[in-house]
This record gives sequence, C-alpha cells and structure tokens, in this order.
Amino acid sequence: MSVHSVRTDLALEAHENMEVVSENTHGITVDESYHENTETRITKVLVSTKNGAKALCKPMGTYITLETPNMIEPDENYHREISKELAAQLKEIIPDFEKEQSILVVGLGNREVTADALGPDVIDNLCITRHIVKAYGKAAYNKSRMHLISSLAPGVMAKNGMETAEIIKGVIEQTKPDLMIVIDALAARSIKRLNKTIQITDTGIHPGSGVGNHRDGLTKESLGIPVIAIGIPTVVDAETIVRDALSYMEEGEVDNSFQGKMVNSELHNMYVTSKDIDEVIKRLSFTVSEALNMAFDMC
Amino acid sequence: MSVHSVRTDLALEAHENMEVVSENTHGITVDESYHENTETRITKVLVSTKNGAKALCKPMGTYITLETPNMIEPDENYHREISKELAAQLKEIIPDFEKEQSILVVGLGNREVTADALGPDVIDNLCITRHIVKAYGKAAYNKSRMHLISSLAPGVMAKNGMETAEIIKGVIEQTKPDLMIVIDALAARSIKRLNKTIQITDTGIHPGSGVGNHRDGLTKESLGIPVIAIGIPTVVDAETIVRDALSYMEEGEVDNSFQGKMVNSELHNMYVTSKDIDEVIKRLSFTVSEALNMAFDMC
Amino acid sequence: MSVHSVRTDLALEAHENMEVVSENTHGITVDESYHENTETRITKVLVSTKNGAKALCKPMGTYITLETPNMIEPDENYHREISKELAAQLKEIIPDFEKEQSILVVGLGNREVTADALGPDVIDNLCITRHIVKAYGKAAYNKSRMHLISSLAPGVMAKNGMETAEIIKGVIEQTKPDLMIVIDALAARSIKRLNKTIQITDTGIHPGSGVGNHRDGLTKESLGIPVIAIGIPTVVDAETIVRDALSYMEEGEVDNSFQGKMVNSELHNMYVTSKDIDEVIKRLSFTVSEALNMAFDMC
Amino acid sequence: MSVHSVRTDLALEAHENMEVVSENTHGITVDESYHENTETRITKVLVSTKNGAKALCKPMGTYITLETPNMIEPDENYHREISKELAAQLKEIIPDFEKEQSILVVGLGNREVTADALGPDVIDNLCITRHIVKAYGKAAYNKSRMHLISSLAPGVMAKNGMETAEIIKGVIEQTKPDLMIVIDALAARSIKRLNKTIQITDTGIHPGSGVGNHRDGLTKESLGIPVIAIGIPTVVDAETIVRDALSYMEEGEVDNSFQGKMVNSELHNMYVTSKDIDEVIKRLSFTVSEALNMAFDMC
Repeated sequence: MSVHSVRTDLALEAHENMEVVSENTHGITVDESYHENTETRITKVLVSTKNGAKALCKPMGTYITLETPNMIEPDENYHREISKELAAQLKEIIPDFEKEQSILVVGLGNREVTADALGPDVIDNLCITRHIVKAYGKAAYNKSRMHLISSLAPGVMAKNGMETAEIIKGVIEQTKPDLMIVIDALAARSIKRLNKTIQITDTGIHPGSGVGNHRDGLTKESLGIPVIAIGIPTVVDAETIVRDALSYMEEGEVDNSFQGKMVNSELHNMYVTSKDIDEVIKRLSFTVSEALNMAFDMC
Repeated sequence: MSVHSVRTDLALEAHENMEVVSENTHGITVDESYHENTETRITKVLVSTKNGAKALCKPMGTYITLETPNMIEPDENYHREISKELAAQLKEIIPDFEKEQSILVVGLGNREVTADALGPDVIDNLCITRHIVKAYGKAAYNKSRMHLISSLAPGVMAKNGMETAEIIKGVIEQTKPDLMIVIDALAARSIKRLNKTIQITDTGIHPGSGVGNHRDGLTKESLGIPVIAIGIPTVVDAETIVRDALSYMEEGEVDNSFQGKMVNSELHNMYVTSKDIDEVIKRLSFTVSEALNMAFDMC
Repeated sequence: MSVHSVRTDLALEAHENMEVVSENTHGITVDESYHENTETRITKVLVSTKNGAKALCKPMGTYITLETPNMIEPDENYHREISKELAAQLKEIIPDFEKEQSILVVGLGNREVTADALGPDVIDNLCITRHIVKAYGKAAYNKSRMHLISSLAPGVMAKNGMETAEIIKGVIEQTKPDLMIVIDALAARSIKRLNKTIQITDTGIHPGSGVGNHRDGLTKESLGIPVIAIGIPTVVDAETIVRDALSYMEEGEVDNSFQGKMVNSELHNMYVTSKDIDEVIKRLSFTVSEALNMAFDMC
Repeated sequence: MSVHSVRTDLALEAHENMEVVSENTHGITVDESYHENTETRITKVLVSTKNGAKALCKPMGTYITLETPNMIEPDENYHREISKELAAQLKEIIPDFEKEQSILVVGLGNREVTADALGPDVIDNLCITRHIVKAYGKAAYNKSRMHLISSLAPGVMAKNGMETAEIIKGVIEQTKPDLMIVIDALAARSIKRLNKTIQITDTGIHPGSGVGNHRDGLTKESLGIPVIAIGIPTVVDAETIVRDALSYMEEGEVDNSFQGKMVNSELHNMYVTSKDIDEVIKRLSFTVSEALNMAFDMC
C-alpha cells in the first residue's frame, strides 16, 4: 500500500496504520480486554514518551477505545449497558474522580448538521446542577458528594464568527470549572468504525480534529484545566473513501500525482455518512449523556 | 469507460450518459438556453416516444433543468432572481396554469436528516390558502384568481410505518386537489451538480428516486391528478463516488467483479454530502418556496 | 358562584362543575382509587345513558383520569412507574387488547408551539413496526403477538390548509388500521390540573377540544374505527383565568354583561402556560410514549 | 385604580403609569412622531437626570419605542419597511455608528420555548463577518466600511447551569467587541402591546427583565462596552392579566390582601401568550434580523 497521510481522529486507527510497531517500545503501551455482556472490545493505548507520540502522531496521554458493534442497533434501553461501561471508563480517566468538582461539559459541533450534532445533543440530556448548588447549597440534593455540572454548546465559527476556543476560554475564566469534558463527532478513516466506536482521551481536542475541523486545540495547555475528550466517529472524509478504493487497486504502480488528480478539490468539502444518521445520533447521544449522568450520579 | 449503471435522479445526467445520441431522433428533443442575469443554463429535454424513454431510461414527459452555479453562494436576497426564473418555468409546465386550481404541495424527505430536509423545509415557507378560501370564500383575498394551496410533509416510512404513497393517496382522496407539486432532495451522479441544479418535470416521482429512495411512484397514473416534481440533488451515493474514481483509472483493464469487491456493502447505506449542507438547504428551500409563492401569487 | 360555561377538555372538571350530582343516577358511574407507589389518584367516570351525557356535557363512554402531581417534577427515570400505570389503563380500555391489531397512533398539535407539541413529540419516541411486519412478516420479531404500529402527526390547518380530520380519514382509508389512538394537549379549566393530569377516553376527540381547538371530531362515528384519546392539559384559556378570578369576587352581585366586558376579545386568542413548558413537554411526552411502547410490548 | 407594582419591561408603559407627569420636568423628555407608510408611532423617551430615572423607575438613557400594529399581520415582504425604520433608529442610537466596529450580537432566551425564542431566532438569520475579516482581511468584502459581526445565543441557566452574564462576560473578554447589541423577548403589562411594539434602548438589559427574568444586568457598567438592547414584548405575566381584570372591578373598594389571595402562587410561574406565537416569532425575528443586516450593510 502506498503511503499517504489520511485524516483520522482515532488513536486506534493511527496505531493500526503504524507498519511495524514493536508495541511496548517507543513508549506505547497497548492493553486490550473484551467484555462479553456488551460485546465490547476495550483498547487502552498509553503514550508515555515523546518518541511514542511521534510514532503514533498523537500527543502523549491515555486513549481508551470502546468498540461496540451493537451500538448501531436500535435498543429499547438505549444501550444502558454500554452507558455503564462508558461511565466506568470515565471514572478511571477523570483525575481526582472521588473529589467534589465543578465540571464544564462542552458539546462541540453544529446542531443543524445531523452527523455533527452529537455534542450539542449530549448536552441536551445532561443533568445540570451548578446553578442549583450555587443558589441553595448542597442541601438541595440529598447526596454526600455533589458535583457542580454546567454545560456549553459553543456552536460553529461559520455561524457565530468566533473560534470555539475563544468562547470556551472566556466561559472557563468566568465560571472557573476544575475540569472540562468535551464531546465531539469525529471523522474516521474507515467506514467500518462508523458509529460503533467511542474514544475517551485525557489529551483533549487537537487542531484539525472533529467533523467540523476545529482550528485551535482544546487542551490542558491551552485552557489551564484537565480536558477529557469523548469522541465518536460519525463521518468519513469523502477523500478518504476514494483514496482507500484507489489504494486497493494501485499496488504501488500508480504514483501519487495521479491519485491526487482523482481526489480533486470537489471532494474536499464533502463527507460520507450513513442514511439513517438521525436515528444513529439520537441513540449515540443518549448513550453518552446517560454515561455522564451515571458517572456523576447527578440525577 | 466501462459501462455500469449508476444511480442518478437527473434526466440531464442520464442524457449525458447516452454514448451516441442523435438528438431529435428517438423522440428526444433537447432545447438549451442561457440566461445572463442569473448565469443560468436551462435545458429542456422532451421525451415524446417510447423509444426515447427507453434510450434515456426515463419516462416520457418534459424535463426542465436549471443549472445555476451561483445558487451555492450566500446571497442577501436569497437568490430572488433564480426564484423568478423557476417561477416562470413552473408557469409553463403546470397544466392549465391560468385556471383557478386546488394545488397540493408535498415536501418529501426526512426533516431530521439535513440533506434530506429540502422538501419539508420548502413546505414551511409556503403561503397556504385553502382553509381560508374554504372558510371565507375568495373575498378573503383581493385577487382575481385565487388558488387553493394546501401542503403535506408525509415524513418517511422508517418513522411512521407507512408508505409515503399511501399517505398522499389518502389525502388526495379526501381533499381532492386538481394538481400536485412534489419537492424532493435528489441523488446526483456527480458531485459537480450538487446543490446547483434544479430539475422540474411533469412525470412525477418514480420508485427508487430521492435521497430516501421512495418505494412507490407518485405519478399521474398512480394518483389520478397531474404531478409536477421539483428536485435538487443534495447528495451523491457513496458507491457512485468510488465507482467514478475507479473508472477513471480502469481504462477497461479491470473487470467489474473486482470493482464490485471495492464497492462493498458497507458503502451501500452511505451518501456523500457537503460540510455546509445546513446553510445550503436553508438557501435552496427558500429559493424554491419563494418561486412557488411567486408563481401562485398567493402572499 | 355565577353560572357560566367555561371551556374544559377534562371530564373530571366537567363532573366537578355539576352542582348537585346524584352520582350513579343519570347513568354516571364514578369509581375512584389511589395508587400509593406513584401517588396517583385514578378516577373512572362511566357515562352510560344519554341523560348522563347531557348532565355532564360529555359524550357517552369511559373517561379515566390519572391525577399524578409527581409528574411535574424532574425524574431520572422519566416517571417510568407512571408510564406503567398508564399502560395498564390502556390495556383495559383498548377493545380486544389481546388480539393482534393494526394501530394508528396520531399525535395532534403544532410542533412549533411548545405547549401544543405533546402529540407530535409522543410520536417521535414511538416504536413503529407496521412497515417491518409488512415487509418481513412477523418473523422479523421474536414475539408471539405482533401489532402493526404506524403513526401520524397531521400538523395544524393554519400551516397545511387542511382539516386534521381530512388527513386522518384519508390515511385510515388507505392503511386500514383496526384502532386509532390519538394524543393531544388539552385546555384545562384550572391551573391546578396543568401538566399533572392524564385523561384516557374511548370517546375520541370532539370538536372544539385540544389546545388548537379542532373543528371536526375524531370519533368512531366519523372514522369507522374505535378511537382512544389520551390527553394532558398543558394550557388554560386566558379568558378562563380571568373569569375565575372575577367569579371569586362577584358573589353573584356582578352581572354577566359586565364580566363579558372584562373578558374582552384581546384575551380570545391567548392562553396561559407555565414558564418551563419545554421541560414539562419533554417529560410528559416521554412518559406517554413509554406507556404506549410498554402496552404494545413493541420494542 | 389601586396602586400596585406590575411588571413591565417597556419604558413606554412605565411612563403611561406615571399618574401626573409634567413631562420635560424631572429630566424626562418625550418626543413622538408618526410614520404614515408603515403606520408606526415612534416615541423617544430621554431620561437625563436621576430624578427622571426615579420617577420612571427606569435607568437614565434613551428609550425608543416603535408601535407598529401591522407587525402582527402576515406580510409577503416580512415587513421590510418596518425593518428599514428599525435600522434607521439603530443607526441613531448606536454610538460612533460611522466608525468600523466589532459588534457582538447576543440573542437571549430559551430556543425551546416558542415565546422566548425571539433572541436566538434573530441570531440565526444574521450575516456574520468577524471570522472572515479576521482570516482574509477587509478585502474579502468589496466595501469601504467593514464591521466585524459575531453572535452568541447563551441559552438559559436552567439548561446550562451558568448565569447568562457569566457567559457573555467571558466571551467579551476573549473576543473584545467594541459594542454589544442584545435582543430579548419581553414581558408587557398589557395584552394590547403584545407583538406590536419594539423597544430600543442604550441602557442595556436590567435584572428581572425579559421573558426568562434575567438575574444579572447586561449594561455598560457591568460589561465595559456600550450595550444596545432591542426588545419585543411577546408575553404578559399571568398575574398581571388577573390583576388588571380585578382592578377594573375594584374601584378602590377591595383591599390588596384580598387581591393578593386571588393572584395566588399558582399563577406565579405562568405567562399568557398568543395561540399563533410560532408564526409571530418567525415574522418578528426576521424583521429584526433584517434590520440589523440593513443597518450594518453586511450582506
């Protein structure tokens, strides 16, 4: 297969693309497990050195991937078991989880584009507590530990004229959360992962990622607080689809300039998504919002 | 180029695909004109014989296509000039246009999937008069000719369990319109036509057409009244994109079985659409609804 | 209290308004029970004679009312227990419940007006099976009894120019369901019942009822199949609020003409609703759709 | 009429309520004009002294009110003439209008509650330029003067857990606009002004105003930049309706304690709105967004 850089927001795909990886060298540790009841394969990739980060083209940090094919099927309980699994993983990756914290949950993406609405839709189903605890104290709830949950759906620059990062920075400065959790629809490299894979990472969101291609990063470095990112691939770039088809045929014979001609500028602003994306996003967003509600035990 | 059947809802594309066409034979008449002010090319394809229909793989009837590249650009007047052009074409193709008529405007498609929402969105901006004329008579308006306009957005079978054709037939039987106009988002063969082409035809909607792939036709034969269809391609089947890329390379050398392997089942339920499809649909639906409002002079 | 006719869609309120009612005479049977676990009072009013119907100003039939104050509170399980109770009542009132049936569920109301969106929102969360059973047979599901569920949100006349009854009649003629269940937001007489009361009746929907004031009835007589109506009051007419306040003061001294002056035409097209009606409708619609999904055991 | 404080967001109503007003004393200047073509009465109230502010219970500043009864009627041009009038008034009240400025337009309110969606809906139709000018410079547009327009719909505290003022402060600190324009649905004292009145003021938004009752003010003092507020009353508090009806009857005889009993807590969280509020908000938001687009000449 010819080498070319294709866009993937998934560490798992980046890892698969590494041609020869002596895992556990380069500072990349991979840990896999399979959970029978939900038919979910969980892969934890820990990138602990700069060399590892370079090899994977991903920042140092932890990447947890849940591959859960059932998630694309309708389910009367909205995949409650997957929500539980996701909640368990969140409890592990969130720093100081046992401490009472103020947590800002940010839903990235464009509410008006079905495949990009995952983030805003997750926000809509979240149990929000910050204003109540601020107004009435913890006594408003009958719980020993009481997080202050707030949420934000910053929208997209084409609609509001502002960088997503500008809006989030401003809100963080004013409301001073301890932690940010950010949800985003991702672009996958391969159709086979679409809508079936959840990635959790403590490295935040990096420039160029997400369906909407964020220009600035949302990371602990840029925002000053830990950033946990939850992403689900809901689209594949149209260019990627074509490149993949071509590379099957090529077998090294066709040079990249030809390939470049095929993958023309018309494809540049296009993406591939499934025909029932509305039902898919409805289910996925509920699975994620329930996981967050369970993890925080807020409602 | 190898021959394979690809899905297109556009007569213009079907016509371009005919390798050798002696136009004006086979009962296919093609008439082109260019309108400077809107930079619109208008092509009228008249299919007047069964042979012509067979050659084009499209039913006998009139197909008017407006190719108007400006339509994808933002415009402060929502492309009012294109609406005017479209209104003029509608006046020509609608039978007995000068007569006062009861007209049912149907917006096909799934409101929840951005690229498929064109039809329902057009309906939302329409001036509806049937109930007012029925209740207060023509005197309610100060016009010499008063159409009775009603509208319907039947939704999709996956959501309501019924064929679109069942719902429409039932509504026509009860409300007895003289004419139906149906608006639908189409699948194009080529990305270059996406969101820039409007097709008007008096042949209605045929099985398998539209983003959502209607199972039953909506035609004069099936519904008993003339059916004018307005369609705009907003997606390309993902399979088509890949096939196109492959056929560029093939030059006859690769057989279809190989190609079939590439275009696998994963692609089957996927489509390609543009990243700013929300803005596109907002503009297109307004352009079409304004054209209808102008043509009927209803508000 | 002076006597005046105020608009109520609730049989319970109509019954309360009867000044001296020798229950069990006039063909009105009232049966009350209290369900501890959900804190729900269930009242069944059976109107079995024409005299009873006249006394109550409601058609002959069964009216089941669930008064359940908890329903206005947020709940992490979306009031699943209330859904169960409602499902149990539906099973009793639906004719031939044990038989496999084709059931059309209709959500009345205007999706764009928050307080009137109950019906359309219930439809959105329903498990729809008709098209799957039609295409693949009962084998598609692993169940002994398999209903064919379809749904319709006909919208409102101001938007589509057609009577709701026209649309529904047409769809029934084409799709031939055995039974119709119709959900609608109601107008209550008193604020104290708002969003806390569910009425189920086998008498269908009558002219003038509902937030949107339907012009034609939807009954077994007009549609030819049994019609079960589920209604929840979400608004109070603005006139009613003012009349109530005035009648407290009057004590018989002020005549109706004065009162009429107060309740002027400006109030005529106004209604009173709660400020958090969006959250209320979200919860109520989920409670009702889950009850339907439970009753039919469809997903 | 007994004296009681009722809630109004309109300076005009506050002014009418002043029993004896020697205008032009107290530092209150009132200037009225009538515009034939749009049948609009424009009242400018200038409050220039602290005494004036005290008498009117409104902060010092300019209050321009457009009373334009036609605005409640459907119009094929979406009331373009009223948009022009509003644009002209905005040009007068905006400080340094001729200077190129960075302007943040904020749409307050809850998108999910029809009567409160005015602000967010205005934002949706606005021409946004800030990101384009930032990326490509003024050359991106062919205009001598090029504003940088950005927008924000901060949502409501019940949904995101944050004060609206917190979000806005943060965004202003990060994006540093020169001016803020804020749009909000208001509560009127009287049904007769509903949906027919536009208030423009340079005093911003004050605590307790708006359909959603903002807790913190949005003013030059709190935000550090000039704040122009555009408000349209779309609801009346339910309490106000009842109090008004009662006070017609009272004629001083009934004491306030009785009245208080009538206007009970059940009414507290209720408001009165018109039945066709969806159509009303659609029209009003387009009229306001077009006025802003015209004033800035941005698209």
